[in-house]
Amino acid sequence: MVVLGIDPGTATTGYGLVRDTPSGPTLVTYGVVLTPAGAPMPERLRTIFHELSQLILLHRPDAAAVEKLFFQRNVSTAMTVGQARGVALLALAEAGVAVGEYTPKDVKLAVAGYGGADKPQVQQMVRAILNLQETPRPDDAADALAVAICHLHSMKLKALTEG
Amino acid sequence: MVVLGIDPGTATTGYGLVRDTPSGPTLVTYGVVLTPAGAPMPERLRTIFHELSQLILLHRPDAAAVEKLFFQRNVSTAMTVGQARGVALLALAEAGVAVGEYTPKDVKLAVAGYGGADKPQVQQMVRAILNLQETPRPDDAADALAVAICHLHSMKLKALTEG
Repeated sequence: MVVLGIDPGTATTGYGLVRDTPSGPTLVTYGVVLTPAGAPMPERLRTIFHELSQLILLHRPDAAAVEKLFFQRNVSTAMTVGQARGVALLALAEAGVAVGEYTPKDVKLAVAGYGGADKPQVQQMVRAILNLQETPRPDDAADALAVAICHLHSMKLKALTEG
Repeated sequence: MVVLGIDPGTATTGYGLVRDTPSGPTLVTYGVVLTPAGAPMPERLRTIFHELSQLILLHRPDAAAVEKLFFQRNVSTAMTVGQARGVALLALAEAGVAVGEYTPKDVKLAVAGYGGADKPQVQQMVRAILNLQETPRPDDAADALAVAICHLHSMKLKALTEG
């Protein structure tokens, strides 16, 4: 099973793909979709939509995951992030990929074992879980990997509980 | 020239198409895209995207307009509206339709001649400008028509100033 995690934003959308293996989650790839600050918003959203669609077509993830973000810094930021999130969810729906949504606390708990973990702790655990030499950069890509790991974790727990 | 106004929302997205004629703006059509509250968000966004894309294909608007919405009631609402707004802007970008953005004050000023006009006043003016028997319903459709009229108005002013 391959899971695509996405951390949406109009300037930077992070993505991370992890595969479930008998020895735990392993990295497939990660990166960011960048859009120029000066470009009109519809064009920026179009770039995000098409880059994510290409990524989905290439890696054919079995599932996807995004963070629930109800606690953005302010209303204007929430609106902007919402726009990027909207086209990310659309790209997944168009490809028929089911999406799991997790609170930041869920992600911290799954990745760092502690819902109050801070960003560096989560990133350090992402590096350790995926057995990487370095912490993935930028933050948006590391956050996308964290939510993908959280989804794998949640699916496993569910399978154990139901099995 | 035909302008498409859109008032995005995940439950109800209003749209309104107006045509510029020598005797002023006239109505082409208006309506709403409704999505079921129980459906997963990616599916709801997909419905909005595809219905708007169909509408654009059918009416081939020369331009489009949406409200700038920085002053939503709360952060969670802003995020949700942002998602619908994102897929609406994407549908327009995919069709190559340029989008104008106007503040609620711009719209009130253009339609009712007064930036502090209330919703019933704006809706009443939309009815009068388009020479309709009744005020367009629901509110989201009336709001979409208002922003379309605002865009026509703004284009005319621009043409006069530059001409």
